[in-house]
Amino acid sequence: MIPSVEINGARLLKRLDDFAAIGATPAGGVNRQALGSQDQAARTLLADLALERGFRVFQDPLANLFIRRDGRNGHRAPFLIGSHLDSQPTGGRYDGALGTLGAFEVLETLEDAGIVTDIPIEVVAWTNEEGSRFAPGAMGSMAFSQGNIPQSWHDAKGTDGVLWRDALAATLAALPIAEPRALGFPIAGYLELHIEQGPSLENEDIPIGIVTGVQGTRWLEITVKGQAAHAGTTQLAFRRDPMMAVNAALHGLYATIMPGDESARFTVGRIAAHPGSVNAIPGSVSLSVDLRHPDAERLAAVEAHVLATFQSSAAQHGCELGIHKTFDMMPAEFSKRLIDSVERAARHLGLAAKHMVSGAFHDALYVARIAPAAMIFVPCRDGLSHNEAEYVEPRHATAGAQMLLETVLDVAKYRKVNALRL
Amino acid sequence: MIPSVEINGARLLKRLDDFAAIGATPAGGVNRQALGSQDQAARTLLADLALERGFRVFQDPLANLFIRRDGRNGHRAPFLIGSHLDSQPTGGRYDGALGTLGAFEVLETLEDAGIVTDIPIEVVAWTNEEGSRFAPGAMGSMAFSQGNIPQSWHDAKGTDGVLWRDALAATLAALPIAEPRALGFPIAGYLELHIEQGPSLENEDIPIGIVTGVQGTRWLEITVKGQAAHAGTTQLAFRRDPMMAVNAALHGLYATIMPGDESARFTVGRIAAHPGSVNAIPGSVSLSVDLRHPDAERLAAVEAHVLATFQSSAAQHGCELGIHKTFDMMPAEFSKRLIDSVERAARHLGLAAKHMVSGAFHDALYVARIAPAAMIFVPCRDGLSHNEAEYVEPRHATAGAQMLLETVLDVAKYRKVNALRL
Repeated sequence: MIPSVEINGARLLKRLDDFAAIGATPAGGVNRQALGSQDQAARTLLADLALERGFRVFQDPLANLFIRRDGRNGHRAPFLIGSHLDSQPTGGRYDGALGTLGAFEVLETLEDAGIVTDIPIEVVAWTNEEGSRFAPGAMGSMAFSQGNIPQSWHDAKGTDGVLWRDALAATLAALPIAEPRALGFPIAGYLELHIEQGPSLENEDIPIGIVTGVQGTRWLEITVKGQAAHAGTTQLAFRRDPMMAVNAALHGLYATIMPGDESARFTVGRIAAHPGSVNAIPGSVSLSVDLRHPDAERLAAVEAHVLATFQSSAAQHGCELGIHKTFDMMPAEFSKRLIDSVERAARHLGLAAKHMVSGAFHDALYVARIAPAAMIFVPCRDGLSHNEAEYVEPRHATAGAQMLLETVLDVAKYRKVNALRL
Repeated sequence: MIPSVEINGARLLKRLDDFAAIGATPAGGVNRQALGSQDQAARTLLADLALERGFRVFQDPLANLFIRRDGRNGHRAPFLIGSHLDSQPTGGRYDGALGTLGAFEVLETLEDAGIVTDIPIEVVAWTNEEGSRFAPGAMGSMAFSQGNIPQSWHDAKGTDGVLWRDALAATLAALPIAEPRALGFPIAGYLELHIEQGPSLENEDIPIGIVTGVQGTRWLEITVKGQAAHAGTTQLAFRRDPMMAVNAALHGLYATIMPGDESARFTVGRIAAHPGSVNAIPGSVSLSVDLRHPDAERLAAVEAHVLATFQSSAAQHGCELGIHKTFDMMPAEFSKRLIDSVERAARHLGLAAKHMVSGAFHDALYVARIAPAAMIFVPCRDGLSHNEAEYVEPRHATAGAQMLLETVLDVAKYRKVNALRL
């Protein structure tokens, strides 16, 4: 019921304010897109704060930023805590920033309290988690986890026309005080604090989510081709209407996928009819499908169900079907031992917590491929995120940082576990 | 079984070829949009052919073109036959041209045979039936039937940026040989030959459609507003998904309107989701609805059913509904006595015929508001129209013109009816 050591909540909230001022938008949000000048300013501020406290600052070739507080065994692989500093173009103050600054607050609290951890603890700010200026998202953690930079990224252009490699070089050059470091070194584990970006914790009035994994995701681009024809002259029997085929397929899928499995997500976010005349049966209808499930087998089964349903509907309406998979992310399961450690921290702090699966991507998803990883969620108002109105109650922000600290102490000091074998 | 007088089929087919060369497209179609240079060239050719035969040529302030062959009673209101000469940008050779040139063939045949009709017979080519360059369509017949030009048309711009009033003035000026005439003079009746623009005559192997009216049409623009949210994090219970609401409504409507009433038409030609991200539940979905029915009361009932269904679906999904009616055309019923006359002509010629309702608009719809009107349909291949591949078999084109002639003889000569009391 008593924190092992207490974080400085007021300091954390002030840091959140200070960083929210970098790229602040008139509507109270943040525009701090990856590898831009505001992102560079945020990185510089964090590095300056770190150097003031005597921590070491590193950046790897992808501009992932590391702030190291040494442990008793300096040669041991560090335990990483953090998130990202970049934002959506009309993003909020907490997405990424809370996890990064909460982690930095843990380092400062350890320093204030003179605690010597068994292994080094490092704060990490991964590069370009959002993917809004340069695609794909989670570049930093992805490259870190695979130990190389995909060739295709070098010629990638941002939404503003800037070459990715130029923006990266400028960002690296903007932080000359950082020591260079290789991409993808051994780590003992990774823990990320983040806002939920959904409404379930707030709705259930639970302050802490213990994230057991990240849903798998598939994106499908579906095109159903029929025959364009006159809306007035063409009787039902002669119609090969792709809108009717799509409607029938979606009706079947809406009625089965989510109602039948509360872990499944099925979303149609984009749809268009061609040629798109009010008085013509469309020649074709295109739509996007976003499928998610925390279980790989169930995800594959849902995808097969989508395919079969569209095939059957298209055939029934005399239409042709084209399906392309544009994104395929397998589900990630987080480390059981690290989850147990987070759970102990919540019990110790007397904070209500519930296990949950993340519906959104996070850097932890990639890091989980090479080391024990887990996440802590805190509620955000109305589940809003990627939105300038994003808001986290101060008590939830500080509870999240306190949870990070308790778990770090559990992992890296008191139990003196060999973190590599978490 | 024997035509009263036989039209010159070879001449009609040659005329069709000659006019198809004006604005011919590489794919075998026609681009002869209203009030453009190709439309002007077609009008000039028709006027020249008319003057060669000794007919008088008139144009009214809307550039409706009239070719007059006088009758025994030159003071009597003329009986009009015709259609339009303008085409869609990638239109076919027969839509409009067959009715106009078939009508001109009737005049030439009457002239060749030295037949004196009781009342004057005039060929008309209505201005801008298609509405593809300047909206709305059927401008010529609409203005003729109401006797004035709507003020809003004057400042209308074409798809090419040209002002409607400038294009109209240029078209009028391009035909100085035409005598000017007031807009909307008394007429004895109107008969229009046209391709079906649908597949039913071809499918039933019937050469002649006797058109008893034109369906009423309503266009609705529907917007369903829900709440944009993350596709991965938002559970079904928290979704206010406008795509689901639209899907449910359309499913109900597709299952009821057309299956329950074979005269009804229900078409969704345009749909879009906003913001249109693959990984976001859309904030809103917009779509167009085209409703048609030959019966005014049934059309109103179908519209009410659409409204009620969308209201219920929107409410069930926590969404807001907006519906705007953007077009409302009451059904038209053609003249019973003129239809009877067309029917007698078919019997006399031994041509199989069936009564049908037009699903598409035609100039006859507007003319029917001020005088007895009717239409004759002939089959077009695969029901294709507004398409460069549009095709009419020569035997059907000539049968259509022969039907026009027989009906004109019935109306305007042999029976010596007072055409004004048709």
